[in-house]
Amino acid sequence: MMTSNTYAVRGMTCGHCVSAVTAELTTLVGVTGVEVDLDRGAVTVTSDAPLENDAVRAAIEEAGYELGD
Amino acid sequence: MMTSNTYAVRGMTCGHCVSAVTAELTTLVGVTGVEVDLDRGAVTVTSDAPLENDAVRAAIEEAGYELGD
Repeated sequence: MMTSNTYAVRGMTCGHCVSAVTAELTTLVGVTGVEVDLDRGAVTVTSDAPLENDAVRAAIEEAGYELGD
Repeated sequence: MMTSNTYAVRGMTCGHCVSAVTAELTTLVGVTGVEVDLDRGAVTVTSDAPLENDAVRAAIEEAGYELGD
């Protein structure tokens, strides 16, 4: 079962942000893909298991960004 | 302009492979997303600029995998 969720993430401005956010999110168990839309400040995470929101938030913060509303 | 290309990649078996391949590919300029299908050995890369095949190959090899046919 594949699941995709899109999160609002504040503070991403460039390719380095894409790398940092993606690297942290792919450390979460089950994540198979990350797609960043810099213009919209949106990150879509695909996984083969449901993700805990707190785990996603922690990964984004670890990368240096903030989960938006 | 967004472009998506799918590459056959040999040797990926688990979430750590997803992390390693994704981390290397997101260092390429323009890459905004990476999606790994472990079952198929396929990696889909989305970018806002065309990618050089040699650059993709180098990133995959840097991660420790091989571009397939």
